Amino acid sequence: MQEMTGQADTPELVQLYRDFEVNSMAPLWTQRDDLMPMVPSPAAVPHVWRWKTLFDIAERSGELVPVGRGGERRAIGLVNPGLPGTAYVTPTLWCAIQYLGGYETAPEHRHSQNAFRFVVEGQGVWTVVNGDPVRMSRGDLLLTPGWNFHGHHNDTAEPMAWIDGLDIPFSNYTDVGFFEFGSERVTDEASPQTSRAERLWAHPGLRPLSGLDDKISSPLSAYRWEHTDRALSEQLALEDEGYPATVEQGHAAIRFTNPTTGGDVMPTIRSEFHRLRAGSQTAVRHEVGSSVWQVFEGSGTVLLGGVEHRLDKGDLFVVPSWVPWSLRAETAFDLFRFNDGPIIDRLGFTRTYLPSKDDR
Amino acid sequence: MQEMTGQADTPELVQLYRDFEVNSMAPLWTQRDDLMPMVPSPAAVPHVWRWKTLFDIAERSGELVPVGRGGERRAIGLVNPGLPGTAYVTPTLWCAIQYLGGYETAPEHRHSQNAFRFVVEGQGVWTVVNGDPVRMSRGDLLLTPGWNFHGHHNDTAEPMAWIDGLDIPFSNYTDVGFFEFGSERVTDEASPQTSRAERLWAHPGLRPLSGLDDKISSPLSAYRWEHTDRALSEQLALEDEGYPATVEQGHAAIRFTNPTTGGDVMPTIRSEFHRLRAGSQTAVRHEVGSSVWQVFEGSGTVLLGGVEHRLDKGDLFVVPSWVPWSLRAETAFDLFRFNDGPIIDRLGFTRTYLPSKDDR
Amino acid sequence: MQEMTGQADTPELVQLYRDFEVNSMAPLWTQRDDLMPMVPSPAAVPHVWRWKTLFDIAERSGELVPVGRGGERRAIGLVNPGLPGTAYVTPTLWCAIQYLGGYETAPEHRHSQNAFRFVVEGQGVWTVVNGDPVRMSRGDLLLTPGWNFHGHHNDTAEPMAWIDGLDIPFSNYTDVGFFEFGSERVTDEASPQTSRAERLWAHPGLRPLSGLDDKISSPLSAYRWEHTDRALSEQLALEDEGYPATVEQGHAAIRFTNPTTGGDVMPTIRSEFHRLRAGSQTAVRHEVGSSVWQVFEGSGTVLLGGVEHRLDKGDLFVVPSWVPWSLRAETAFDLFRFNDGPIIDRLGFTRTYLPSKDDR
Amino acid sequence: MQEMTGQADTPELVQLYRDFEVNSMAPLWTQRDDLMPMVPSPAAVPHVWRWKTLFDIAERSGELVPVGRGGERRAIGLVNPGLPGTAYVTPTLWCAIQYLGGYETAPEHRHSQNAFRFVVEGQGVWTVVNGDPVRMSRGDLLLTPGWNFHGHHNDTAEPMAWIDGLDIPFSNYTDVGFFEFGSERVTDEASPQTSRAERLWAHPGLRPLSGLDDKISSPLSAYRWEHTDRALSEQLALEDEGYPATVEQGHAAIRFTNPTTGGDVMPTIRSEFHRLRAGSQTAVRHEVGSSVWQVFEGSGTVLLGGVEHRLDKGDLFVVPSWVPWSLRAETAFDLFRFNDGPIIDRLGFTRTYLPSKDDR
Repeated sequence: MQEMTGQADTPELVQLYRDFEVNSMAPLWTQRDDLMPMVPSPAAVPHVWRWKTLFDIAERSGELVPVGRGGERRAIGLVNPGLPGTAYVTPTLWCAIQYLGGYETAPEHRHSQNAFRFVVEGQGVWTVVNGDPVRMSRGDLLLTPGWNFHGHHNDTAEPMAWIDGLDIPFSNYTDVGFFEFGSERVTDEASPQTSRAERLWAHPGLRPLSGLDDKISSPLSAYRWEHTDRALSEQLALEDEGYPATVEQGHAAIRFTNPTTGGDVMPTIRSEFHRLRAGSQTAVRHEVGSSVWQVFEGSGTVLLGGVEHRLDKGDLFVVPSWVPWSLRAETAFDLFRFNDGPIIDRLGFTRTYLPSKDDR
Repeated sequence: MQEMTGQADTPELVQLYRDFEVNSMAPLWTQRDDLMPMVPSPAAVPHVWRWKTLFDIAERSGELVPVGRGGERRAIGLVNPGLPGTAYVTPTLWCAIQYLGGYETAPEHRHSQNAFRFVVEGQGVWTVVNGDPVRMSRGDLLLTPGWNFHGHHNDTAEPMAWIDGLDIPFSNYTDVGFFEFGSERVTDEASPQTSRAERLWAHPGLRPLSGLDDKISSPLSAYRWEHTDRALSEQLALEDEGYPATVEQGHAAIRFTNPTTGGDVMPTIRSEFHRLRAGSQTAVRHEVGSSVWQVFEGSGTVLLGGVEHRLDKGDLFVVPSWVPWSLRAETAFDLFRFNDGPIIDRLGFTRTYLPSKDDR
Repeated sequence: MQEMTGQADTPELVQLYRDFEVNSMAPLWTQRDDLMPMVPSPAAVPHVWRWKTLFDIAERSGELVPVGRGGERRAIGLVNPGLPGTAYVTPTLWCAIQYLGGYETAPEHRHSQNAFRFVVEGQGVWTVVNGDPVRMSRGDLLLTPGWNFHGHHNDTAEPMAWIDGLDIPFSNYTDVGFFEFGSERVTDEASPQTSRAERLWAHPGLRPLSGLDDKISSPLSAYRWEHTDRALSEQLALEDEGYPATVEQGHAAIRFTNPTTGGDVMPTIRSEFHRLRAGSQTAVRHEVGSSVWQVFEGSGTVLLGGVEHRLDKGDLFVVPSWVPWSLRAETAFDLFRFNDGPIIDRLGFTRTYLPSKDDR
Repeated sequence: MQEMTGQADTPELVQLYRDFEVNSMAPLWTQRDDLMPMVPSPAAVPHVWRWKTLFDIAERSGELVPVGRGGERRAIGLVNPGLPGTAYVTPTLWCAIQYLGGYETAPEHRHSQNAFRFVVEGQGVWTVVNGDPVRMSRGDLLLTPGWNFHGHHNDTAEPMAWIDGLDIPFSNYTDVGFFEFGSERVTDEASPQTSRAERLWAHPGLRPLSGLDDKISSPLSAYRWEHTDRALSEQLALEDEGYPATVEQGHAAIRFTNPTTGGDVMPTIRSEFHRLRAGSQTAVRHEVGSSVWQVFEGSGTVLLGGVEHRLDKGDLFVVPSWVPWSLRAETAFDLFRFNDGPIIDRLGFTRTYLPSKDDR
C-alpha cells in the first residue's frame, strides 16, 4: 500500500506496521495479489522424473537402507523442485518409488492418509490390506484407503519396485492425520492370485447383498490390468466402428471408481488410465488441481506449460494446477494418472479451459 | 360409524350419506380400517406358476398369434389371482413370458415404463436397445430402461422364450407413461457376442471418461451369467474359508447395479440373484414391497405365508408385500428375483421383519 | 390380436385364450394400448368441489356422527368421479375435509401414511404431533409425516374445519402401510401459540446443532401464514422493481421444504402456495403427476382440459396427470396446492410441456 | 534411517543421499514421523487476540492507509504465531478485521475464495453482493460465496469494523483461486434494510419456485441477529421446560445453512453461533479441523490445550486441529464460530473425541 500511495513512510506508519507484527497481525493490502492471483499460480512447477534414474536409486537404497519399523517403508518421494525442503510432488499429493528386496517385508500400519500403489513393472509382492493379501502385478492399481491396516511382503527372491500415491501433503497441511503401528510381519503371508476383496467386488455391475452400505472409499482393493487394458481397447475399437466412446479422437480413457457410489476410488485421490493411438494428440487443457502421470507403455511427448518433454516407459511427470498440458503419442501410448480431483470437485473449485487453436 | 354407534339410521343420517354420494364425497370412518390396515394386507396373493405350463402356452401362442405392430409383443402376463381383470403380477409389477419364433421380429418402440428381460433357457434372440444389438442367453439380465427404443429379433430358426419384467402396473396406476412407435424391423440386425454398452461399461470398477455424467438407469444393457455365476460361487467359497461374504449361512446373493451410482439398475425395479447351498434354508422374512422370483436352476421349496410350494427350474412365484417367505434348497438352488424395492426405499416406506424362531 | 389378424376365432385360439385364464395369464397384445397409452390417460378426471357445499356437509356430519376410536376422524374424502367406489381424489392422493366440534378430540394414532392439514378458515384446534401441540390457524400448513403419533383437539367452543392431504391411495395401492392406535385423548392438551418444532426449526437458514442428522420428512410441523404471505408479497414486489423472482409475469409461488435437505416436506407429497396478481394468467401446462388445489383467497377461473371453471374462496379442484391447466385471476388470487411430485421426481418420470400459443 | 541402523555413514550412503537431492527425491524414512504423526500435530498454535487491540490498530490504519483498487480492502489478517510469515489464522482459514471510514468505499471484485463477514459491533456499511446491497449490523452474518462480485460502502459518517473470514490459505495452498476486478464504486449505492436475497430466501422452510435448482453455496446473503438470537433463546427455554434442544446442558447452538440443501453455507467454511448460560461449561472436545471463535457478548474463559484464557466481548481465539477446548461462561456467553468443517467432512477426515472426566 505504501507502493500504492508512493509516499515516504511516516513515523506513524512505521509504528503501525511494527504494531501489526507485535500483535500477530498482517495487512492484506501488501500481499493481496500474491495471496489471490488472477489465475492459479502454483509454487509447484512442471517436472519430469526418469524411471531409469528412479529405479537405479531405489535399487541402491535397497542395498544400503533396511526396511522396518520406524521408517516403515523404503519409499523415496518425488520432490517438486518448486517445493524444496518437502517431499511433495504437488501441494496435495505424495508420489514415491517404493522398493522391496527379495523376501523382504514392510511392516503393517494404518493411517488416515489415503494411499494406492501402481505397478509399472515387476511382480512378486503382495500387499496385505486389513488381512487380505493382494497380489501386485504390472498394470495393477492397488488401494489402501485411509485407516486400513496394510503391509507388503515380497514372496520371491527378486526385488520389486512400484509407485505409491498418497495425500500426505494435504493431510499434513490440513492437520487431519492419525497413525497407528500394526504387526511387524504381514498378518497373512499367503500369496493368492485373487484377493478376497476382488472375489466379492470385481464383478461388473454386481454388488454383494452383504455389502449394501455405501463406503467413502472403494472396497475393491485391486483394479487389474487385464480389465483396464480391455476397457481401453474397446473404446478405440468402438471409435473405429464409428461410435462415440473416447474422450477425443484417438484418446481413450477410464476412471477407476468406487463400485458402491460410481464416484472416485478415495475421497481425496482420483485415478485414471489413458491410452493414445500412435500419432494422436490431445487438446491443450488447463485444469484446476494437480496431477501426476506415469508412462506405462510406449513413447511420446508431453507439452507442459509450453515446454515439450520426451517420455518413455516408467517416466513420471507432474502437472501443477492450471499449467496447460497436451500429450502426443509417437507409438501407442499408455499412461496412468492420479490427481486431487475429488478435493477440487467436492469443494466447488472445478474449472477447465481448453483454448481454441487460435488462442494458443 | 353407524356400526360404532349401534344406532338405527335416522332420516338425517340417510340424507347425509346420500349427499356424500351426490357431491363426490366419501367418509373415512366407514373404510378407515380397510384403507389403513394395521400391517400391509395386499389384495395380491402368493402364487406359483409352472414354467412347463407357461412355456407350453407361449409355444401355442407362437403358432396361433402373430407378432407385430399394434400388439407389439407376443408376451403373456402373469395375472395375480388376487388382482383379477388385470395382467398384474403385483400392484406395481408386470411379469410376462415372451416368445419369439425362428427369425421373427418384435418391432421397435419406446415407453416411459422400465423393462428388463431375464433368460432362463434358450438363446438366439438379440434385443436392440437404442440401436445397440444385445445378445440374449441363458442366465443373462438385459435392460431396457424407460424411453429407450427397443425391439427384438430372432437370428435363428429356433424359437426362444424369456421373461419380461416391467413397472407397467405402477406406471398405469400413477399415470406417468408415454409411448412411441419406432422402426418395424430392428434398426441393427447384427448379432454380436457383446453389445456396445458392455464394451463401454462391463469392466469392474472402471468408467469411461466419456461417460462421467450419472444416469438414472444403468447404461449397462447386459449382465452376463458368467459374471453372476462367478460372483455367487466366490461368496460361497469365501464362506467356506471362514470369511463374511454371504447374506446368511449358505445363502449367497448379488444385486444388479447401475455402475454410475452403485444403486439399483432402474428407478422402479430392483433385481437380484440368489444362490442357496443344497440343504440350506433362509430365515423367514417379512418385507414391505412385492417381489417376483424365478427358479434358474435346481429344486427346493418356498414357504409363502405358511404354505410350502415345491419349485423346479423355471417356476415363478410372487411374494406380495409383508407376506413372510423362506426358501429351502434341496439341491444347489439358483433363483432370480426382481421387486419394487427402489420405489419403497426412495419413498421412505422400507421395513423388514425377521421373526425370531420362537415367534413363528 | 384377433382384430389384428382379422380372422375368425379358430377352436385352437379359443382354447388358448381359455388356457390363459385357467393358468392365471393374460396376453399383452389385447390390452397393450390401454396399459401403455401414447400419453398419460388417467381414469381420474378434472373436478371442482365447492367449499360451501363441503363445509355444509361437514357441519351436518358434526351433528350426526361422533368422532372417536375406530373411525378415528370425522373426515370426508373427496371422491374423484373417475375413480368411483374409492375415496381417492387422485390415484395417489387423498383429500378430505375434517371437522371438529367445540371441545371435541380426535384420538391419537400413527401410520406410515404421510399427512398434512391446511387451514382455509377458522382456528381453535391444536394438532398434537408426537406430544407437541401445534396450533392450527388460517393459512397454516401443518405436517404429520409417516409414523408420528398425532391427534387433534378443539380448545374452543367453536367448531373448526380444514383439509387433510394424505398419500392413502398410494400407500394402499402399493401395500406399504402400517397403523397403530395411540392415546384416546391427546397427550398434551396445552394450547401454545408456537409449537416446540417451530421453536427449534422455524428460523430462516438456521439449524439446531442438536439436529444435524438429515430427516426424510421435515421436522418443522408448522408453516405459518405470516411467512408464506410475506414470501409471496416480496416476490411480487421484486418483480415490480424489475428483478427476477416470480415463476412467470404476475405469478409468485413458494414450495414448502424440509429444512434438513431443502427438498420436499415429505417423501410422497409436495406442497406449494401460489399467488396471482389480479388480471394475470398462467401459461397452459401439462405435468406428469396429479395435483389438488384449494383457493385460499380471491376469485378467478381455472381452465382444466379446455373447460373453464369459476373459483371462489375454499373451492377445491383436481388436476389429473397430463391434463392441461391454466389459472386466471380476477382479483388478487391465492391458492394452495399439493401433489405427488416427489413420487414422480424420485422415480424418474418427470415431464412438463408448455404448448406454445400457436399449438393451443 | 541412519538412526535406525545406528551405523556410521558409508561413502555409498552419503552418495545415495546426495543423489536423492540431485534427482529431486527425498526418502520417506527420515521424515515419516513428522509427516504422519500419531495424532494431528499442527504447526498452528492456540492464540487469543483482543478486540480492543485489533480495533485500535484498525482505527489507526483507517487514518494512515487508504482503501482502493490494488490493495482492495483495509483488512488486517490475524497471523497464527505458529505460522509466521503468513497471514493465516489456521492452515485453511483467513480471519481479518476490516475497517471502513465514514463514506468510504471498498471497490468491487470477485474471486474463487469463499468469504463472509461477521459484525460484532457497529453499523452503517452495506456490502453489495452481485449488485444486491446487504445491510451490515451487529450480530449479522453476511456471505459472499466464491465468484460473486462484491464491494462495501459506508453510508454514514461513522467508521465501522467487522471480521472477514475466508478460505484464502486453503485456496492458496491448493492453487484453486481466480480473481477479477470489478467496479470502482459499488454498483448499487442504495441502503435498504433488507436485501433482495433475504426477501427471496429468508422465510423459514419456504423456497421460491423460481429457485428450485440447488446451489453449492447459500443464496441467502444475510443471516440476521434477530433470528439467531431467537433460535438460541428458544433452545435454552426448551431445555428449561425439560425438552431436548441443546447440545449439552446449558449450551445452545445453531449452524448457519444453505437453504437449498440444508448443508453448510459454503463448500469450505462452516459457521455457527453458540450460547452458554452463565455458569455453564462445555465438555472438553478434540476435533479434526481448525476453528476461529469470536466472543459476541458476555465474558468467560476458554481452556485451550490445557491453558485457560479470559475472554471478553470481541476477543478472538483460534483452535488448531485436535487441540482440546472447553468453554466456561461467567455471564451469559455468546460466541460466533467458523471453521473448515465442510472440508474435513466432505473428504472423510471427521473425527471427534470427548475424553471422559477420568481421562483428563
